[in-house]
Amino acid sequence: MENKPNLTMLTDFYELTMANGYFEAGMADDIAYFDMFFRRVPDGGGYAIMAGVDQLIDYLKNLHFTEDDIEYLRSKKMFCEEFLQYLRDFKFECDVWAVPEGTPIFPHEPIVTVRGPVMQAQFIETMVLLSINHQSLIATKANRIVRAAKGRGVMEFGTRRAHGAGAAIYGARAAYIGGCVGTACAIADRDHGITALGTMAHSWVQMYPDEYSAFKKYAEIYPDNCTLLVDTYNVLKSGVPAAIRVFKEMKPAKMGIRIDSGDVAYLTKKARKMLDDAGLFDCQIVVSNSLDEYIIRDVILEGACIDSFGVGERLITAKSEPVFGGVYKLVALETDGELIPKIKISENVEKITNPGFKHVYRLYDKKTGKARGDVITVADETVPEVEEYEIFDPNAVWKRTKIRDYYVRDLRVQLFDKGECVYESPSVDEIRDYCKAQIDTMWDETLRFENPQTYYVDLSQKLWDVKNRLLSEFAAEK
Amino acid sequence: MENKPNLTMLTDFYELTMANGYFEAGMADDIAYFDMFFRRVPDGGGYAIMAGVDQLIDYLKNLHFTEDDIEYLRSKKMFCEEFLQYLRDFKFECDVWAVPEGTPIFPHEPIVTVRGPVMQAQFIETMVLLSINHQSLIATKANRIVRAAKGRGVMEFGTRRAHGAGAAIYGARAAYIGGCVGTACAIADRDHGITALGTMAHSWVQMYPDEYSAFKKYAEIYPDNCTLLVDTYNVLKSGVPAAIRVFKEMKPAKMGIRIDSGDVAYLTKKARKMLDDAGLFDCQIVVSNSLDEYIIRDVILEGACIDSFGVGERLITAKSEPVFGGVYKLVALETDGELIPKIKISENVEKITNPGFKHVYRLYDKKTGKARGDVITVADETVPEVEEYEIFDPNAVWKRTKIRDYYVRDLRVQLFDKGECVYESPSVDEIRDYCKAQIDTMWDETLRFENPQTYYVDLSQKLWDVKNRLLSEFAAEK
Repeated sequence: MENKPNLTMLTDFYELTMANGYFEAGMADDIAYFDMFFRRVPDGGGYAIMAGVDQLIDYLKNLHFTEDDIEYLRSKKMFCEEFLQYLRDFKFECDVWAVPEGTPIFPHEPIVTVRGPVMQAQFIETMVLLSINHQSLIATKANRIVRAAKGRGVMEFGTRRAHGAGAAIYGARAAYIGGCVGTACAIADRDHGITALGTMAHSWVQMYPDEYSAFKKYAEIYPDNCTLLVDTYNVLKSGVPAAIRVFKEMKPAKMGIRIDSGDVAYLTKKARKMLDDAGLFDCQIVVSNSLDEYIIRDVILEGACIDSFGVGERLITAKSEPVFGGVYKLVALETDGELIPKIKISENVEKITNPGFKHVYRLYDKKTGKARGDVITVADETVPEVEEYEIFDPNAVWKRTKIRDYYVRDLRVQLFDKGECVYESPSVDEIRDYCKAQIDTMWDETLRFENPQTYYVDLSQKLWDVKNRLLSEFAAEK
Repeated sequence: MENKPNLTMLTDFYELTMANGYFEAGMADDIAYFDMFFRRVPDGGGYAIMAGVDQLIDYLKNLHFTEDDIEYLRSKKMFCEEFLQYLRDFKFECDVWAVPEGTPIFPHEPIVTVRGPVMQAQFIETMVLLSINHQSLIATKANRIVRAAKGRGVMEFGTRRAHGAGAAIYGARAAYIGGCVGTACAIADRDHGITALGTMAHSWVQMYPDEYSAFKKYAEIYPDNCTLLVDTYNVLKSGVPAAIRVFKEMKPAKMGIRIDSGDVAYLTKKARKMLDDAGLFDCQIVVSNSLDEYIIRDVILEGACIDSFGVGERLITAKSEPVFGGVYKLVALETDGELIPKIKISENVEKITNPGFKHVYRLYDKKTGKARGDVITVADETVPEVEEYEIFDPNAVWKRTKIRDYYVRDLRVQLFDKGECVYESPSVDEIRDYCKAQIDTMWDETLRFENPQTYYVDLSQKLWDVKNRLLSEFAAEK
């Protein structure tokens, strides 16, 4: 794996000024707790998919400041020498918990929690957010697109429109976690085992006098798997007839045609008929023209004859909403070993944070296996598996639901214990399978593209009491 | 510079299957010409800013296939051994021309042209597009935002919402080229010299019993430049009064307040008055809450008292339109030393390519220095500096304009000559200055955010004749 540069300094500059500030203020060893959470699902969806944890682990494992970093910081004339010495000897000492990759996640849940010396726990904010925001954005979008395709394969085809190299590579990884069957990006295959596929561009066809010669040469060289791009000149008049002629002459083991322009519903129905009339029932039809979940849903409803989709820019940039708004907030301090929950007040009720060190539990129905809701608790609390457990909406406490016949799962795993990595990431294939299985535990109402039912994310009574106490104290101070 | 991994394999897989195909078809040495161009400006704007050339040069300079790459490709069982041997000995041999970074660019112009063995010229497609698409997208968006700010500084603050590490780092670089004054991203400063700045997060304030203590400690540690975040609790009731008290007690050399939430037009007017009433006329007001060019324009119109802006997710992801749609098309072949122009036909007139090896010239008015339009010519042609030169709209040939008193500039530079880099990139500061000067050569009508006047990009008579001959030949074949 040679593509792992040291990204320690990929951080907002204020993380460094704050770290030096805590150092100079004598607060270097104060223990703080930070939560990463997000407030709304992109595209108005009902769920998101957690991703990017493995890259966060890589970053945290490799955290170290080089002499170049120290020299750069010294040149800013803002940092004291003792602090620079601390950075030179830097040793990561935090505890980190996170929801595993591939898990459906919901607004306001602590999807990552970091506990440790405030300088360190604060410092890593930027990369916690960058890693998880990016890949969760793409995994979530990919899952919507894959679900729209109703079992047909979706390939990630967006490398050339990605926001740089990392966006292409880790975007391909996240898209795979979200359910894509592969990518066009060769390096994502070499480094992350995401199957890469691809056949020809229009230029291949243009290099030959006509489509027939171009297709025939391709079929000679790739007799095992031969997908021909049929829209360089005219799909139905020249592209498909030339492909049929070559398939009949050359009999490749696997054959397909790809259409990259025009009205794919109309063209694929006509092309399918031409292929079938020629006895080429096994020939696959691949489509790849500015697709997203809405277009895929619609062309399938219109009866388009498509076996798989290549999805480019609208997936790799999450074009309809290219921001996953995860934030990282201080939620508690330790003073003389005692946990002091902290709350961030806002005029906007939705923006008030959930204070304290917390856990997240997911309750599943024993009979159906479906998820009933999540409960956020204080740290020393569990959700008991009892006959009947009452959950309530934290923003409307009269809305109460009794849950019976359920089992409980702690939604998070510990990644680091006092700076030591204690978690081994599953393979991307395992993550992808797990994601698919977890999506199957969600109700269709939650998975709907538009106006989904809001999944329950409730607070335990104890956590609700802590939050209300802090809110009352704040109101009393005003 | 340690952050330069080998990205040779960051390529669409079909570039590899096509390269092997050309190799096996005996076409390895056929000379081809490819153009990169784009069809429309994001956000309905009238111009884009070229960026990403330096990263493309890095990629092309470092092109080489490692034994790991070869082994990976062999494992796919699709590539012949002679081809893998060719890759092992790979030596880049193409000529490359490009528009320099920071130049205003327009649809349909060949902003990059590659000439060389078809295998190589095709292979580099993915990274040509990835590098230029990403940074041109962000530089273009940044320039819109900077222009909206009317001389006030704009900082790039989006690292945590970028699509991965490269999107953060090169996005900061592109934003700087587009006119931002700096970034929050420390590594972009260390590696690319983009000034990084940053002060405190809400958590700094929350770590102290109250805002006054938090601000006072910060001012003690950073007396040279002290910008205080005043919206943790209540901007006007507690944040600004605490800041004023600390500024008066501590007298930092430079002082500022930052507001990151709420109605910034209202809050900044009130805060300005409070600061002025306290005699703190030099205290700067920085604003940073989900900003883009439209909000910035509007709050300035509303009389907001803002000295500088921090712009995050809407800049670093180009949220309103996160795709720069550059494409890479075959435009010519050489057969026995003769140039054979190629055209890609489409039902959509806008999608028909301009054939052949071409040049782009920009005509400037001698008196005003303003750009009058661009002319694309065939390769052995120049635009003469004569008394009167007639240009015409290629899609409406009766629209003709006579240009007088002008001078002509070849818009592109050669980057590589037979694989050797012959261009030295200017520094980012030079590029940024050049961009600003070039934007000043554009008419306001072109720079308008919405419904801009279309800038002239015309074809020379010779090029128009070539294109029409090819179109007639194609029509005759039908």
